[in-house]
Parts: sequence; structure tokens; C-alpha cells
Amino acid sequence: MESRAGVAATPGALPYYVALSQLLGLTVVAMTGAWLGLYRGGIAWEGTLQFNVHPLCMVIGLIFLQGDALLVYRVFRNEAKRTTKVLHGLLHVLALIIALVGLVAVFDYHRQKGYADLYSLHSWCGILVFVLYFVQWLLGFSFFLFPGASFSLRSRYRPQHVFFGATIFVLSVGTALLGLKEALLFKLGAKYSTFEAEGVLANVLGLLLASFGVTVLYILTRADWKRPPQAEEQALSMDFKTLTEGDSPSSQ
Amino acid sequence: MESRAGVAATPGALPYYVALSQLLGLTVVAMTGAWLGLYRGGIAWEGTLQFNVHPLCMVIGLIFLQGDALLVYRVFRNEAKRTTKVLHGLLHVLALIIALVGLVAVFDYHRQKGYADLYSLHSWCGILVFVLYFVQWLLGFSFFLFPGASFSLRSRYRPQHVFFGATIFVLSVGTALLGLKEALLFKLGAKYSTFEAEGVLANVLGLLLASFGVTVLYILTRADWKRPPQAEEQALSMDFKTLTEGDSPSSQ
Repeated sequence: MESRAGVAATPGALPYYVALSQLLGLTVVAMTGAWLGLYRGGIAWEGTLQFNVHPLCMVIGLIFLQGDALLVYRVFRNEAKRTTKVLHGLLHVLALIIALVGLVAVFDYHRQKGYADLYSLHSWCGILVFVLYFVQWLLGFSFFLFPGASFSLRSRYRPQHVFFGATIFVLSVGTALLGLKEALLFKLGAKYSTFEAEGVLANVLGLLLASFGVTVLYILTRADWKRPPQAEEQALSMDFKTLTEGDSPSSQ
Repeated sequence: MESRAGVAATPGALPYYVALSQLLGLTVVAMTGAWLGLYRGGIAWEGTLQFNVHPLCMVIGLIFLQGDALLVYRVFRNEAKRTTKVLHGLLHVLALIIALVGLVAVFDYHRQKGYADLYSLHSWCGILVFVLYFVQWLLGFSFFLFPGASFSLRSRYRPQHVFFGATIFVLSVGTALLGLKEALLFKLGAKYSTFEAEGVLANVLGLLLASFGVTVLYILTRADWKRPPQAEEQALSMDFKTLTEGDSPSSQ
């Protein structure tokens, strides 16, 4: 294929890494389902099975969909910036809603059983991550989708948005691992050390969760895979830059 | 002070972030010691207290010293590149030795007690991280300190070294959190949910561990805080580049 002007070629290895990330992400979701189905009695909104809604929703929302939302700018390299941005925002909204269902499930289950809330390191990290994720979404929306923010303000905020986005994703993976470990130790106890099938399956799931996280971060941080600014964006940016250089944020 | 030619000014906020990282890192080490002293009977190389050598050594080696080794290039911005490189390598060796003592302690303790080895997610992640850390050190030494590698080879490997260095550090923090959680659940069990003092202290320690990790990564990844190439290095690099451009690695 000939490369058209303004359309950057996709780096050769990128599609393979993206495929690997999707393979890992889908395996993680399927394996979480298999673990809950095989060893925890499956899923329901009523009774003791309501707890199982929690890990499944968290893995789908705050691991798989959050990870994919971060990859949108690498995968859709030649779509209009605005389309990519809206897709990025929508995937994060979907992740947020699914995670909220997962949160409601565990609080509801605790209430039903009379268990205490928010005592463990997993729950402290989880609430922190969820709040940070929501704040990050609000800030992202205000700066990048809402029309008020000036070009210079966006440029100053962008590196922070990228750093904290990646950080919240890593914290989400870490929190999932803590939750998995908690679920194993509460149920298996000393049997964990006898290499029970459930323990081994969950350990493999833990390693796959970490591998998904590392693969997403590798794609995200590789300098030569970053989305190239398109010709029209560059021209537009220069205009905006000339207009807004040194101005104060219009929304203040 | 006047800025001399070839000496780049240190970015204004960098020293504060470095100070914050050191404050967090030292607090984490002190708090791990306090936790082991107050609730686990202290530390010894003999008997059941031998286990306690493990968390302390791992936190000093694979968290604090590893984190500080990553920061060397940001803190010593105007020292000769070779001096900084040797310090980076030495800090990692020290971290590796202390971590090895921590590993020996836990295997020895398990053998003494007749416990199974390597059955938990924490242990799987831990062994993986330790092996990756050792391989990363060997590769780093061969490419950057051993004189054989060509300039072009070093340039190609450098981004991988940086990415995997940061990744191994993050995995180390994650593994520490899993270990902390394991130690809590094995001892406290259902009492964890009654907000026992030990549980709360360990949860705070967990959050501080994560905060140290995030602060180190922030300093490391901020684009305008990267070490500027010094005038002599630039000249040298250009010479090497001209000499070695397109050559094949001399060590192959």
C-alpha cells in the first residue's frame, strides 16, 4: 500500500503487541469467570453468590476496559483526534459503570452477611483507586472534551493526565492481585500450601493479570509508538498556540 | 549563583520531590522495622524470628535501594556519566545482596518448620522479580559498564533497560504488598476485620509502599527532569555515532 500524505505508517511490531495485550486481557476475563464458576459456585445478584459479581466486574471494568481505553491512541493512529478522544472517554465511562456495579455488589453482600466494610489493605487501595479514577475522568473531561480549556492549559495538563492515567491503571492491577490473594487465603487457608487446583489456577491468573498490565504499559510508553500529530492538528495547534500563548485559563 | 557552561540548572521542583521520595522510603523501612518489632517479636537469624529477616531485607533491598538506584540519574545531574553509572550499578548490587539474604532467611525458615516452598502468588511473583532483577543487572552491566558494547548497540538497548527497570521496580512493590497481606491474613485471620492495631498499621504501611513507588516513577518519567546530555558526552556521542553507525554489534 502506498502511504498517503498525513497518514503515518503503523510501526511494524505494534499490531502484534496489541494482539498479545488483547489475548492476555480476554484470557484474564475468561479465567476469572472460570475460577468463579468452577470453585465459587458461579454468579448471582442474590445470596452468597452476589460476592462473585465483585471480582468479575472489577476485572472487566478496571482491568480490561481501563487498559483498552489507554491503548486507544496507539491503536487508532490515523482517525480524527476528536473521534479517538470520545472513544477513550466512553471506554472509561463504561469501565467506571461496571466497576460501580462491582462495588455495590460487595457492599451489599457485606451488609447482608453483617461483615465489616473497608478494613483490609485491598479495600483501602480499592476505594482510593476508584476515587482517583473518577476524579481523573472528571478532570480529563473538563480539560479535553469540554470546550472551555485553552490550548496552553491542555498542554500543561496533558503529561499529568498521562502519568496519573498509567499510575491508576497499575494501582488497579495491584489492587486486583491483593483481592485475589485475600479471596484465596480466606477460603483455602493452610490448604493453599498443598498446591490445591484452585490455588494454582488463581496464581496463574495473578501472573496473567500482571502480564496484561506490563504489556499495556509497554505499548503505552514506547516512544516510537506514540501517536504522531496529524498535519491538520499541527497547523491548528500552531494557530491556537499563537493565540493563547501566555494567556490565563479562560475558565478561571 | 551563575550557571557555568555545560552545567544544566536543576529543575526547581525536583529536589522537593526527591526529598519526598526519601522521606517516604525511610518511613517505609522504619515502619517495617516497627511492625516486626512491635507485633512479630523482633528479628533474629535463629528460630521463628528468622522469618522476620525476610520482609525487612526485601523492603530495604528491593524497595528502598532499588528505588534510589533508579533516581541516581535524576539526582546527580551534573556528575560525570561514568561516576553516575557506577553508583547506579553499585546500589543495585547492594540491593541484590540484601534481597538474597532475605530470600535465604525465608527458605531456611520454611525448611526448619517443614513448610512447603513457593506455593503462593507472593512467592511466584517474588521469585520471578528476583530472577528478572538479576538478569536485568547482568544485561545492564554487559551493555553499559563492560567496554565491549558499541554505541549503536547501547542506544538500541537503553529504552528497553529503562522500561524493564521501572517495571521490575513496580513488580517489586506489588510483590511486597502481596507478602504484607499474606503475613496479615495468616496471623490475624478474622480478627483483621475488627480493625486491630496491627492490621491498621500494616494497611498504612501498604499505602506508603505504594506512595513511594508512585513518587519514584513520577520523578523518573517526567520528561523535563531527564538528565541532559553534557557537552563532552554529546561531542563524544557524535564521534562514536559517526564511527559505529550501521555497524554490527562488536560482541556478536
